[in-house]
Amino acid sequence: MKLGAYYYPEAWPVEQWPRDLANLRRLGMEFVHLGEFAWALLEPSEGRFDFAWLDRAIQLAADHALPVVLCTPSATPPVWLTEAHPEVLLVDAAGRRQRHGTRQHACWSTETYRRHVARIVGALGARYGRDARICGWQLDNELSHYGKEPCFCDACQRKFQAWLGQRYGTIDALNRDWGNSFWSQLYQRFDQVRLPNPAELVAQVNPHQQLDAQRWFADEAADYLRGQAALLRAPAGDRQWITTNYMHRFAATNPALNGRDFDLVAWTIYPVHGAANRGPLGFRMGDAAEFSFAADFIRAINGRAGIMELQPGQVNWGQVNPQPQPGAVRLWIMRAFAAGSEFVCTYRFRQPRAGAELYHYGLVGPDGVTPTLGGEQFAQAARELAALRAAAPGDAPAPAHYQARRAALLYDWESRWDIDNHKQNQEWDTYEHLLKYHRALKRAGAPVDVITDAKDFAAYPFLVAPAHQLVDAELVARWHRYAENGGHLVLTCRTGQKDRRGQLWEAPWAGPILALIGAKIEFYDTLPAPNVGHLRVGAATFAWSTWAEVLAPDDRTTVVATHADQFYAGRAAAVTRQLGRGTVTYIGVDSRDGALEARLIREVYERASVATEDFADGFLVDWRDGCWIATNFHHEPQPAPIPPGAKILLGERVVPPAGVSVWR
Amino acid sequence: MKLGAYYYPEAWPVEQWPRDLANLRRLGMEFVHLGEFAWALLEPSEGRFDFAWLDRAIQLAADHALPVVLCTPSATPPVWLTEAHPEVLLVDAAGRRQRHGTRQHACWSTETYRRHVARIVGALGARYGRDARICGWQLDNELSHYGKEPCFCDACQRKFQAWLGQRYGTIDALNRDWGNSFWSQLYQRFDQVRLPNPAELVAQVNPHQQLDAQRWFADEAADYLRGQAALLRAPAGDRQWITTNYMHRFAATNPALNGRDFDLVAWTIYPVHGAANRGPLGFRMGDAAEFSFAADFIRAINGRAGIMELQPGQVNWGQVNPQPQPGAVRLWIMRAFAAGSEFVCTYRFRQPRAGAELYHYGLVGPDGVTPTLGGEQFAQAARELAALRAAAPGDAPAPAHYQARRAALLYDWESRWDIDNHKQNQEWDTYEHLLKYHRALKRAGAPVDVITDAKDFAAYPFLVAPAHQLVDAELVARWHRYAENGGHLVLTCRTGQKDRRGQLWEAPWAGPILALIGAKIEFYDTLPAPNVGHLRVGAATFAWSTWAEVLAPDDRTTVVATHADQFYAGRAAAVTRQLGRGTVTYIGVDSRDGALEARLIREVYERASVATEDFADGFLVDWRDGCWIATNFHHEPQPAPIPPGAKILLGERVVPPAGVSVWR
Amino acid sequence: MKLGAYYYPEAWPVEQWPRDLANLRRLGMEFVHLGEFAWALLEPSEGRFDFAWLDRAIQLAADHALPVVLCTPSATPPVWLTEAHPEVLLVDAAGRRQRHGTRQHACWSTETYRRHVARIVGALGARYGRDARICGWQLDNELSHYGKEPCFCDACQRKFQAWLGQRYGTIDALNRDWGNSFWSQLYQRFDQVRLPNPAELVAQVNPHQQLDAQRWFADEAADYLRGQAALLRAPAGDRQWITTNYMHRFAATNPALNGRDFDLVAWTIYPVHGAANRGPLGFRMGDAAEFSFAADFIRAINGRAGIMELQPGQVNWGQVNPQPQPGAVRLWIMRAFAAGSEFVCTYRFRQPRAGAELYHYGLVGPDGVTPTLGGEQFAQAARELAALRAAAPGDAPAPAHYQARRAALLYDWESRWDIDNHKQNQEWDTYEHLLKYHRALKRAGAPVDVITDAKDFAAYPFLVAPAHQLVDAELVARWHRYAENGGHLVLTCRTGQKDRRGQLWEAPWAGPILALIGAKIEFYDTLPAPNVGHLRVGAATFAWSTWAEVLAPDDRTTVVATHADQFYAGRAAAVTRQLGRGTVTYIGVDSRDGALEARLIREVYERASVATEDFADGFLVDWRDGCWIATNFHHEPQPAPIPPGAKILLGERVVPPAGVSVWR
Repeated sequence: MKLGAYYYPEAWPVEQWPRDLANLRRLGMEFVHLGEFAWALLEPSEGRFDFAWLDRAIQLAADHALPVVLCTPSATPPVWLTEAHPEVLLVDAAGRRQRHGTRQHACWSTETYRRHVARIVGALGARYGRDARICGWQLDNELSHYGKEPCFCDACQRKFQAWLGQRYGTIDALNRDWGNSFWSQLYQRFDQVRLPNPAELVAQVNPHQQLDAQRWFADEAADYLRGQAALLRAPAGDRQWITTNYMHRFAATNPALNGRDFDLVAWTIYPVHGAANRGPLGFRMGDAAEFSFAADFIRAINGRAGIMELQPGQVNWGQVNPQPQPGAVRLWIMRAFAAGSEFVCTYRFRQPRAGAELYHYGLVGPDGVTPTLGGEQFAQAARELAALRAAAPGDAPAPAHYQARRAALLYDWESRWDIDNHKQNQEWDTYEHLLKYHRALKRAGAPVDVITDAKDFAAYPFLVAPAHQLVDAELVARWHRYAENGGHLVLTCRTGQKDRRGQLWEAPWAGPILALIGAKIEFYDTLPAPNVGHLRVGAATFAWSTWAEVLAPDDRTTVVATHADQFYAGRAAAVTRQLGRGTVTYIGVDSRDGALEARLIREVYERASVATEDFADGFLVDWRDGCWIATNFHHEPQPAPIPPGAKILLGERVVPPAGVSVWR
Repeated sequence: MKLGAYYYPEAWPVEQWPRDLANLRRLGMEFVHLGEFAWALLEPSEGRFDFAWLDRAIQLAADHALPVVLCTPSATPPVWLTEAHPEVLLVDAAGRRQRHGTRQHACWSTETYRRHVARIVGALGARYGRDARICGWQLDNELSHYGKEPCFCDACQRKFQAWLGQRYGTIDALNRDWGNSFWSQLYQRFDQVRLPNPAELVAQVNPHQQLDAQRWFADEAADYLRGQAALLRAPAGDRQWITTNYMHRFAATNPALNGRDFDLVAWTIYPVHGAANRGPLGFRMGDAAEFSFAADFIRAINGRAGIMELQPGQVNWGQVNPQPQPGAVRLWIMRAFAAGSEFVCTYRFRQPRAGAELYHYGLVGPDGVTPTLGGEQFAQAARELAALRAAAPGDAPAPAHYQARRAALLYDWESRWDIDNHKQNQEWDTYEHLLKYHRALKRAGAPVDVITDAKDFAAYPFLVAPAHQLVDAELVARWHRYAENGGHLVLTCRTGQKDRRGQLWEAPWAGPILALIGAKIEFYDTLPAPNVGHLRVGAATFAWSTWAEVLAPDDRTTVVATHADQFYAGRAAAVTRQLGRGTVTYIGVDSRDGALEARLIREVYERASVATEDFADGFLVDWRDGCWIATNFHHEPQPAPIPPGAKILLGERVVPPAGVSVWR
Repeated sequence: MKLGAYYYPEAWPVEQWPRDLANLRRLGMEFVHLGEFAWALLEPSEGRFDFAWLDRAIQLAADHALPVVLCTPSATPPVWLTEAHPEVLLVDAAGRRQRHGTRQHACWSTETYRRHVARIVGALGARYGRDARICGWQLDNELSHYGKEPCFCDACQRKFQAWLGQRYGTIDALNRDWGNSFWSQLYQRFDQVRLPNPAELVAQVNPHQQLDAQRWFADEAADYLRGQAALLRAPAGDRQWITTNYMHRFAATNPALNGRDFDLVAWTIYPVHGAANRGPLGFRMGDAAEFSFAADFIRAINGRAGIMELQPGQVNWGQVNPQPQPGAVRLWIMRAFAAGSEFVCTYRFRQPRAGAELYHYGLVGPDGVTPTLGGEQFAQAARELAALRAAAPGDAPAPAHYQARRAALLYDWESRWDIDNHKQNQEWDTYEHLLKYHRALKRAGAPVDVITDAKDFAAYPFLVAPAHQLVDAELVARWHRYAENGGHLVLTCRTGQKDRRGQLWEAPWAGPILALIGAKIEFYDTLPAPNVGHLRVGAATFAWSTWAEVLAPDDRTTVVATHADQFYAGRAAAVTRQLGRGTVTYIGVDSRDGALEARLIREVYERASVATEDFADGFLVDWRDGCWIATNFHHEPQPAPIPPGAKILLGERVVPPAGVSVWR
């Protein structure tokens, strides 16, 4: 795994470039990231290019043995472009056309914008595609409009209508699948349908329309990136990889849609920005589950992953921007390593003096020479990674007891959309529900892939599908076969309620999965604050408030959790059964803190006779390249499971908060 | 009282209609509600009607002995209408013209829309008006724009201006009554005046303009319904009643304005949708006071009332949508019965599979056959009501001790608007202030009518007028006569401060009522959180924070509550006096929990030598059709006041939470 | 100091004017304020004036020996003006053109509006400028758009662009100073730049653009007032002063910019309107620090100050509007006296019966004759002030021990903007940070001027510059000289981070001040709720959460406060050093309650061997006109520092809450 950094030569006096690149190299960086957001400098007026400054920067990088990641500048159109073609500007939900002055304000659905993007990307590809100094390409940046998506411009409306036409064929089919006989919503032609916008609608949005709009938006975004990739594919050849940069919590685009378009998938993570993270030191270390879940998802897309942006210290954009814990930056780098990342690039090398991000830390301060606390940690990690490369046999197979725990967490993007579109309890959080199961698996010491249903389940002894609301007969059959063939399947509440259109079944609640789970779902309940319900598993009690189902188990189904209060006290809340050579467990409740999920997942392993760990939440141990890597996001020291004879390559047997230990 | 249910045949395969209607009948429903929202199906293109499907559904209903309530579909214009005539679409406060895709997005002030509505309503009337299978008509649905009212379109502006012209005659009169010399607000012509919209105004809205805009909106809405009623009056004849469907908490339209237009007044109630209701089980049973207050208001309008929508279980539109308490649906039905309802119709028979309301429970689930918990309670209530009809002598007069407690609660819609327009304390809630007095009266065991001042007060031994801010000399004189003639009058804080224009008096504070209450109001106070003030009544202490007045009683006035703290500790907060053969009590404080109001109302009865009950808050006992009906919304069991010899028709002597007892 | 009141004759029947003015005089008022908001009455149609009613009112005032303050009516254009010229109406951030109906909805950047304003102001000046009955002029009122500023109309955009052209000369200079190479923000022409508006921008606004927009807005507002003053200067001559009326918490306009245009500076204060003020009686007395800080700032602008609006009782515009504490109105009048005010005018003489402010108290109620509690206090204060004038030798010099404590608080409007534009912790409040130091100085018994850096520092033995983020070499050199020459300088956190453009230094953090404070600033931290950090000064502990710096002191620097927790426990948080004949103290932390600041400021005085008081927070003692005036905003009685032989002119030795004592 290699380390690198963003550098913006265009922001600094040209005399300082050599010094800055030399310092960047001296801190242990092995590549440099250039060109992001530089469109106005690369194409100062329409069709007139200026590559001289970039040539110079690339050559200086090469002089310092720094391969270059080049970025297409499509996130930031020059002022001349939006001035001449205002129709490329985003129209927000309020109907407001956005303006020049920040970034990501152009709409990638408009043909005009795509044409201008193609010209600059084509020119960059032509000039640098076969250039050995360039190691890879990043397309655009964090493709989104930072919460102002979707765009509601005419081009988007037309593209959505065309997409619907493709999907449904006839308007009658759309009316049927959207339930449009209700509220006289029936459309007569596709061009009467609009992207749903609460600002222009009096009552609740049609949920099928909303789901389709989300599908379209993600498809359109993927298509846009695919288009950029296609322009670079030939000039990039085999030597330069192509990727983009996804924000791991951003749900409107779906990285999995571009899995085949990119050589590897890269993403952005800023663990510390004032969010109320778990534990007393969470605000200084970030959330282990979020980091780990994202890494396990991105890596699983096509098997290759990198972190394109990792914060080197305080940021500028949180509501509160505290200092990271000493050691936290190194902790994150090592976590990325443990999770299989090919590189970690930090945003940014040098703290800016001006502009919107002037409070954003770099590896060095705005003076360009003083390393920050995070800069020193990057340098330390560079040295340590080099030592590990030397010391560890990269190709050793993972130990069998670790492989035996291997789990897949099934992540259905469309189910997440559909549930979050209509939560039935505003406190419900689909993403947190997924994280609870990821935390449960990591506490058990399992290696986890977060996969979509395009993957083969058979590779995993354990398969957890949380809140998989949208299903079809084929998926349910695959689950069935998976268990019959010896897999241990865990389904959770809100699974199987609807078909892929988002319609309820003409059947008992969640009808298609009932035979699979061996129980009926009599009803669900949800509690307004401050009410809290309780469950019992053995002698232990757990609390819930967002969602609980009351189950009626079949004869051969075992109850594993029981309601302890409410008018259905004593009724089943979670059940398990044998199915063929495997098991199926259904957990019908979303607990408040995830402890219930950790307990029930551990019991699944126990019933499967697979030994697990019982790690503290936030203490993660993984195997990579012949090493065990323990990273501690917990606020208390944690004992690492280092066997007596092991060789400790880094750290100690007890890992302090923000600490790392590596052994083999 | 009869039970019925909404059914949408247009949403289901035609083969299922007979089965569904048979099931509906089998569950004990005695009528079915059809046609709501079906405009696009009834008039698929302008002027072309399709009644075949509705004919079929009506005949199937008749085949199952189910009379039909038909609904005019004006809440949901078809897409062709709004596409051809975008000027009928609501313009919201942001200036945004609303679009097709949900409901209630058309503006009923536009002549174009009224013309289209008249055509479809006329056609329905012509076809089904004389049809014996149809028992009644519902006009439109929950007339409103669900919080996006008022509309600010040009038609609304012009109609408001014309209404002002009618009301004021000259612009000088308007300028005078609105105080327009201040801030140079003086208008020169009516067409310069606009509906007040904070989005286009820099500072505080003129309160008289706001009050007039509210009056106009309610008048215009009433006029629209009156117009629909007029179209159906002749074809409906005597056999079919006409009504609409009011939301009981919605304050922008005023049901009392259509009292003469409708044969009966119907309304909507959804007691359980996650609101923070009173008591630990309030979130599962709803608020007894809200339910009872609304029923007592709607019934008093013209003496006939029905509930058009009552939830049969969980709903889809709250921030949190919990399960109702087992028995709660039956509790509500019996509460409606006790409050004099002629029917209870449930929304809806069958849970939908698609569309915005797919999480809304029905009497049966989306499979169309499985009764829900609420469906079973409807069936139970149907059986019980039939038994009561058989057992009880419907025409027995109410017992004298009950009649002696009879009270009217005076509800002035315009005072509520005017106070809520300018609360002086953001925590003040006029509606809750009214409920406190309704709760006080029901705890005393009184039968209550919630009336407007169009009613004769003399029929009631007790008259409570809470926060009646706007008064005129005639009303004050009526109050005076009422007490002199032996009535027991209770006025509360914020009463009599202003004239009907909303102007303060050129007189001491609340000048016109001072002689009546026998005290001066020296000043009022209001406390920002977390400050709380206290009062004393005898040895008991009560808390307040939103509003308290400091009273200076006349010589012959008795102090009944005293301030216990603040700089006016020891001063009077509530007073009472004899007036002729009656009494006048003035309660100058709004308490935090209503206990003060319960105490002082009970004392009014005691001084009048009328015996009262002392029921727990939420335990309601009423007389109807020769029976006593006790309904328990309290979270603890309550003893019913069943005399030794009474015949218990339903339930037990101790009524459990959500329980009902009936005896005679 | 004289007392006066607003009166709106145009709102009342002409027959009542003589009675009202007689009562106003009888309550002890010595002047009357007329003409505010009366444009529609003064110019009923374009160019046609009606001064007859105002002539009559002015003569009646003169008949009652009441000099008149006349107000220009430019805050409230008549409806004919905005109807004929809609381009003068404000365009808000949502792009919405505001409408007639309230006030301050016109944009003073448009030439059309300025032309109309010039006509009415010119006409008023011509008619009343040389009139001996008029004592002064107020221009406009609380110049602002009450939170809807800035206006985004085309005229504003063009004026901003022109202002930028003046400031930067070339677009390249602007691009450089705004850091526009980032995000391709580079502009090609000034007319491409817009006033920054988050509603039309996808991501974070450019902070330099935002700062310049704030500068421009304040400059434009000052220019507008300057223009009105210029029209009246000649007719006003020496006999009539000219001023305007600033809201003391409103930060978008800057009173200091008009210091040379006005004879005196007037302002508005409403201490009680439901805000969560300090202490259990804060909601009834207001905040002493806010009042005192504003008075010390306004007075220091050009040495003459008056309060144009002081509430006489409850107001109508707070979220909650409680009663002031008995005595509080007099307390405020005396506080104004102590702070050097030349007059206190109350808004308003008579509570209105109609319009947006009908709940606003006056000296008399809406009946026009009954004095309110506040009216009685105004009358009392008028008698007391007359007695003080008679009793006190106005020209006695302030005692030496008081002069020795004299302090200047340096208030940099642009630093406040720039910090508040980007707080790094949403809880940070620059204004509260300034108040903490003002409170610290007043608790020490110091006379304080709140000054801008246009003032000479040498007049003050103590100089406190809190959070002075933007500095230049000249200012730092002045601070250096100030200390070297014997001054005691206190700088606080966030000082010196940026240059005047808002760019960070190409240097260590806050580079230019490091030599001055004798320490390096290693980093800053900030804590998301509910985290709280602690500091130690001697044995005492103090809490912080918004901002703390970790300092590395030089050899000759003394640590005065130390971090008690977080990962930098034990490190320095505040330091002091000798510099020439003076001292420099740097306090790198913003505490939660100001106790730390009070302690460290007292230590600065101790090190300087200047004796201080140790007053309770909110107990203020000042010297004016030969008297000591103690005003108690604290909720407990406070002993006044009255020496044994002193003559007590008012009050007692122990001052009750809301009490006043005066002695000499």
